[in-house]
Amino acid sequence: MTTLTRLLPQTPKANAGPLAPTTGVTTLPAIDGVRLSATMAGVRYANRLDVMLAEICTGASIAGVFTKSSTRSAPVLMCQDHLAKFDGSTGPAAILVNSGNSNAFTGKNGFDSTRTLAERTAAALGCAPDHVFPASTGVIGEPLPHERITAKLDELVTNLRPDAGADAAAAIMTTDTYVKGAFTTLDLGAPVTISGFAKGSGMIAPDMATMLVYMFTDAAIAQPVLQQIVSELNIRTFNAITVDGDTSTSDSLVMAATGRAAMDRIDSRDDPRAEQFAVALGEIMRDLAHQVVRDGEGATKFVAINVTGAASDSSAHTIGLSIANSPLVKTAIAGEDPNWGRIVMAVGKSGEPADRDALSIRFGHVLVAENGWVSPSYKEADGAALMKEQDIEINVDLGIGGGQATVWTCDLTHGYITINADYRS
Amino acid sequence: MTTLTRLLPQTPKANAGPLAPTTGVTTLPAIDGVRLSATMAGVRYANRLDVMLAEICTGASIAGVFTKSSTRSAPVLMCQDHLAKFDGSTGPAAILVNSGNSNAFTGKNGFDSTRTLAERTAAALGCAPDHVFPASTGVIGEPLPHERITAKLDELVTNLRPDAGADAAAAIMTTDTYVKGAFTTLDLGAPVTISGFAKGSGMIAPDMATMLVYMFTDAAIAQPVLQQIVSELNIRTFNAITVDGDTSTSDSLVMAATGRAAMDRIDSRDDPRAEQFAVALGEIMRDLAHQVVRDGEGATKFVAINVTGAASDSSAHTIGLSIANSPLVKTAIAGEDPNWGRIVMAVGKSGEPADRDALSIRFGHVLVAENGWVSPSYKEADGAALMKEQDIEINVDLGIGGGQATVWTCDLTHGYITINADYRS
Repeated sequence: MTTLTRLLPQTPKANAGPLAPTTGVTTLPAIDGVRLSATMAGVRYANRLDVMLAEICTGASIAGVFTKSSTRSAPVLMCQDHLAKFDGSTGPAAILVNSGNSNAFTGKNGFDSTRTLAERTAAALGCAPDHVFPASTGVIGEPLPHERITAKLDELVTNLRPDAGADAAAAIMTTDTYVKGAFTTLDLGAPVTISGFAKGSGMIAPDMATMLVYMFTDAAIAQPVLQQIVSELNIRTFNAITVDGDTSTSDSLVMAATGRAAMDRIDSRDDPRAEQFAVALGEIMRDLAHQVVRDGEGATKFVAINVTGAASDSSAHTIGLSIANSPLVKTAIAGEDPNWGRIVMAVGKSGEPADRDALSIRFGHVLVAENGWVSPSYKEADGAALMKEQDIEINVDLGIGGGQATVWTCDLTHGYITINADYRS
Repeated sequence: MTTLTRLLPQTPKANAGPLAPTTGVTTLPAIDGVRLSATMAGVRYANRLDVMLAEICTGASIAGVFTKSSTRSAPVLMCQDHLAKFDGSTGPAAILVNSGNSNAFTGKNGFDSTRTLAERTAAALGCAPDHVFPASTGVIGEPLPHERITAKLDELVTNLRPDAGADAAAAIMTTDTYVKGAFTTLDLGAPVTISGFAKGSGMIAPDMATMLVYMFTDAAIAQPVLQQIVSELNIRTFNAITVDGDTSTSDSLVMAATGRAAMDRIDSRDDPRAEQFAVALGEIMRDLAHQVVRDGEGATKFVAINVTGAASDSSAHTIGLSIANSPLVKTAIAGEDPNWGRIVMAVGKSGEPADRDALSIRFGHVLVAENGWVSPSYKEADGAALMKEQDIEINVDLGIGGGQATVWTCDLTHGYITINADYRS
């Protein structure tokens, strides 16, 4: 039983995709020890929230995972540096995020802009500059007009409040058509809340899948344990989604645990409460990952690809992504065509161990192919009917081992081309 | 100076893409020792050439390269088996190709169909069954109606003639919008001709890039030398093109050298004539590869990506393919948007060594980015003007080593979605 609740936009955008969440609430709960604010700084566009600030209390644990791109942005490099030496006991921390400009591939000036933002944020908030975790998302390769952001820092600090999560979630959006947030509560001896929000819809692929994810909890959990749980869950959530196989230079996930809940701190992954926490956090991360895929550029179908019977979990993951990233599979799904031949092709091109005659494919519960060819029981009408659903499940069993993985993606439509063939100019 | 001449269709198809060749001839030259024929067998569609037969004289050398897919089709498996033990001195050989049905993932029945076709072809032609090189291209996963082909074998054999290359090239097409052929002549002591044709437009990616390629020459060249040259050239031609990153289960390249030219046989790769032959053959293979990309499903732009300064040639190749396969790069090109930030992204996600600050990017001769950010001399109008051309050159220098490679691709357009979202149903 899950208590997970989704965030809904206060005013839905006119271009929201057909897969946008329909049930939820319009606010995120306060997390003791975290205050948020958002503002319109006009980084690229006027009259929209485009900068968010989070203040995290002294004593928090912070964990993170970041893009593995070799051309990652200045803010990502700074976050990795700051996280490696972070000690929450020495004072408060901050997260500063702008949308509209990714400050990626902006040379030495880009680094200078990020350093200036960190220093000015630290000064305005009263924290150490190396306790600031910055992020920038938007167009690549254009100088970040950081003075538009620094001009708003005092206002951002003044407006910090515990319940501004929905505004913060809105401020980090770029081509997203809806805000993405979720929260849950659990009992770890004391009541604990986990809340998170994310942005991303194009340039989504492992590793890391999501562009930006921020999560907060009042649970008390030691930093190494928090990092271990976040890293474990990331593999099966944000690293298991793909929209177009492209990987951002800015992908960042940062999670803060304030420790304000009335509980003894979790100091070991073997503490039974660590697993309880991981289960609840996993639900949040998986749901946010799904929300990102459902907002995939031009998406009209949400596709879960379950791979079983592979040589290893890692092999299953690679095969799942090969299917999920295949333009021919994705366009077939867009066309509601149960073209399982393209799935066979994608298994074959993955480079992973496969035995044609041991392979079986199911659309949902419908057995399509087995023993190296189409199943005698398969009727095209059954497959075609399933493909008309909005949520599609493709089950591939390799029949050669015990490895398994699930990967999520969306279809590839004219909408994707329209959005991306004229995004910048 | 090249003597390369392209094949043009006798009657251009109404849906031929904007990048179709415009200069050439409508026939392929006869190759002494090779006879061809084509017929309408109605494998999938009526009233179109869909089966071709080639007869190759006793004493020929045959080389081949094939898809590395782990779910490759029955004909591919048979070709690999037959090629491994081929000895042309023991008798003539045959190539039998049908379009309309790929006989891939068709189980034991598929193997039986391929075996029947090989045996019946051998009987009709008077060659050994293991001298038959079959191929099937078209829809995956449907039983091949091989009796429609065997019913035409006597007719195919009766109609064999040296100058039927253009019909053979037409018979192997599927979604292709134009026939793809090229030939050249060279002097290896005696005049020698090399002639080839190919098909492919979707499901094109390394390895192997092209679905089907057949090449013939009257040169006398020992089989191991021919195989070595074909394999070398394949890396830089058919394995260096990509339309959508998807790899066919049927990709096959077969080349026959009849040895009928009045020359001493080339028995070593170190024979200077071997290099002469390789240069000429390389031109044919590169041109056929380019013709495949130019017929990429929905393509409106032909894109050459030159990667230099990489850690190794192989690293340069991987980076080139990462750029060429990026949906965000391909849609930007479709939109004539000089969005070099997406190229930086694609370099970064390749997993290959790169140093952001050593990287430079040029569109044609226009320097766009260097030293980790946009070049001070770059004007967006210059980049935008180049992107309006039909042929686009992207030059990426990694600045860290001597590795280089060139990769060719096309843009990703609404046309690709339209073709692939409703190909089968």
